[in-house]
Amino acid sequence: MSVFTLQTTDGQARRGILRTAHGEVQTPIFMPVGTRGTVKALCPQDLRAVGAQIILGNTYHLYLRPGDAMIARRGGLHRFMAWDRPILTDSGGFQVFSLSALRRITEDGVSFASHLDGSRHLFTPEKVIAIQTNLGSDIIMVLDECVPYGADYTYTKQSLERTTRWAQRCRNAHPQDSPQLLFGIVQGGFFLDLRHESLRQITEIPFDGYALGGLSVGESKAEMLDILNAIGPQLPAEKPRYLMGVGTPLDLVHGVAAGIDMFDCVLPTRNARNGTLFTSQGRITIKRAEYAEDDTPLDPACPCFTCRTFSRAYLRHLYVTEELLAYRLNTIHNLTYYLGLMERVRHAIEAGTFQRLLAEMEDLYDR
Amino acid sequence: MSVFTLQTTDGQARRGILRTAHGEVQTPIFMPVGTRGTVKALCPQDLRAVGAQIILGNTYHLYLRPGDAMIARRGGLHRFMAWDRPILTDSGGFQVFSLSALRRITEDGVSFASHLDGSRHLFTPEKVIAIQTNLGSDIIMVLDECVPYGADYTYTKQSLERTTRWAQRCRNAHPQDSPQLLFGIVQGGFFLDLRHESLRQITEIPFDGYALGGLSVGESKAEMLDILNAIGPQLPAEKPRYLMGVGTPLDLVHGVAAGIDMFDCVLPTRNARNGTLFTSQGRITIKRAEYAEDDTPLDPACPCFTCRTFSRAYLRHLYVTEELLAYRLNTIHNLTYYLGLMERVRHAIEAGTFQRLLAEMEDLYDR
Repeated sequence: MSVFTLQTTDGQARRGILRTAHGEVQTPIFMPVGTRGTVKALCPQDLRAVGAQIILGNTYHLYLRPGDAMIARRGGLHRFMAWDRPILTDSGGFQVFSLSALRRITEDGVSFASHLDGSRHLFTPEKVIAIQTNLGSDIIMVLDECVPYGADYTYTKQSLERTTRWAQRCRNAHPQDSPQLLFGIVQGGFFLDLRHESLRQITEIPFDGYALGGLSVGESKAEMLDILNAIGPQLPAEKPRYLMGVGTPLDLVHGVAAGIDMFDCVLPTRNARNGTLFTSQGRITIKRAEYAEDDTPLDPACPCFTCRTFSRAYLRHLYVTEELLAYRLNTIHNLTYYLGLMERVRHAIEAGTFQRLLAEMEDLYDR
Repeated sequence: MSVFTLQTTDGQARRGILRTAHGEVQTPIFMPVGTRGTVKALCPQDLRAVGAQIILGNTYHLYLRPGDAMIARRGGLHRFMAWDRPILTDSGGFQVFSLSALRRITEDGVSFASHLDGSRHLFTPEKVIAIQTNLGSDIIMVLDECVPYGADYTYTKQSLERTTRWAQRCRNAHPQDSPQLLFGIVQGGFFLDLRHESLRQITEIPFDGYALGGLSVGESKAEMLDILNAIGPQLPAEKPRYLMGVGTPLDLVHGVAAGIDMFDCVLPTRNARNGTLFTSQGRITIKRAEYAEDDTPLDPACPCFTCRTFSRAYLRHLYVTEELLAYRLNTIHNLTYYLGLMERVRHAIEAGTFQRLLAEMEDLYDR
């Protein structure tokens, strides 16, 4: 069986099936972020209940604590966290560039100081493949440099060319017949010609899938959409396409409209912990006084455990008093919303009504 | 039907059934503490899964936030928190004496400043009955003064006599045919004659059950056992007997040996959040390095979700990285341990083997 089967399209939007060592994933799909071996506040049974098909783990965090060799000795990340469906791990590069200190990039790789204890570490392309092999994730990512927003043309060009050389070294370090799928990443900052150049270079390397990286780093929505709409549809059609670290519900639908199959973002889980909840009627800030005596469900249209069981008044009380239960209930709801949205997207593509769903989401979130 | 049926005894230990407006409770029983409308980190489904038959709510906290009138408008505490089994609420007195500032005790009641915002409030016997009526709990408690450990004889005597007068005012303020059961509380500090005097005075008032208060306030285990063993067996035999705010697994078994039917304590839930876990082999401090690569369950003899699903290594990782999931998994385990212990106690009383269980627990926790 091939890694990816494209079932049908509606414009650029694609309905497909991604096959991994831990089972199939129906695409387009959103992947909840489980940074350190848990999607914060949820257990694997909660993840199944909200409809999660695949989750993401962060290599940087797991490498530092509890350590990838320790996880390998436990039988891998799936067994360690008791999650038997697919897992994708990032390369750790993004966290090195966003969290760690004293970074130094050379041709060999990137050295950095841990944000936990200042200890020094080196991530090379070969090293991040070895770490992700230890983690045993189903989909692993190449080491790339995510250039900061505002980086100039010369630096961005040098960086994307190094990212290509690192991608080739990752490919060389990882057997093509491994059950762990390896994805390449297109970079190039916010220069359209550099994005096309990176696309050309990365897609020359035979990866199992291709990701679009370096977006949602501080740019405007218009800048993001320019890159997304130019590059998304040009990614290889026969392989899964992954938009990294993006984004809002509307961003996801725009991504699908540009031919993207896979998404991840901390937004639904982080927002849940901050009391910002997504509903069929738009965003709700649960701490607001207007919900203090509101006996209705958070979202009457939502089938999740939180909405079936509790009122807005109770959820507001839990949030205001900083009760631990608030984080779990809010996270269950926001992930149900995100995963339900992706299910609606899949049905709309199948029915040829994706443009209508896109217009509906623009109406809901742009107003 | 009477409130309490005594089924069988084994020495002083009693096996019974307590009847409330929200169903029966098999005694002896432990009541998990749900301070502010949630047992911290757990939802009602978790409470059912760990075997909770009845939980405790704190009047002081609920009165301050979200407010008892607001809860009454939601249809009561059961409906607000989606828990349809029995609830006992305390009178708020203990928290006034332990948490609030600027307390002033008069014959009328106790005035205090909220620990949240310094606002001034007055709890009278009639007021705490009205608050608990608003909460709609199945068992409500009289206002009492829990004298601090070390209080002198004269003060303790004055206090217990005032507590009796407050108890009578609570009884007068609450109809004897109310579906909400009202329990009196024996005080008297650590003077055995004063304890007997309080017992005599309080049991002259017709309550639905009788509690032993003022223990676990800083005294030695020997001092606690002296009071417990002197007063426990003297509480009215035909009514449920409740030992307030106590204690360790061994304390519970000692309480049962002194004829107690009901217990509550924050120990299993608070310890869970602090990483101290009770097992069939004794206490475990989960952060210890020895568990870092331990693939066995927390307690191989435990049937709880946590022990069935995760390893000590994973639980240690969650605790050390302060992941939110740690609090829920640890709380599920500790409550399963406490409620399982009480089930063993009930079976032992039925089988006439309670003394053997008591000896086993003394061996496990005294060593």
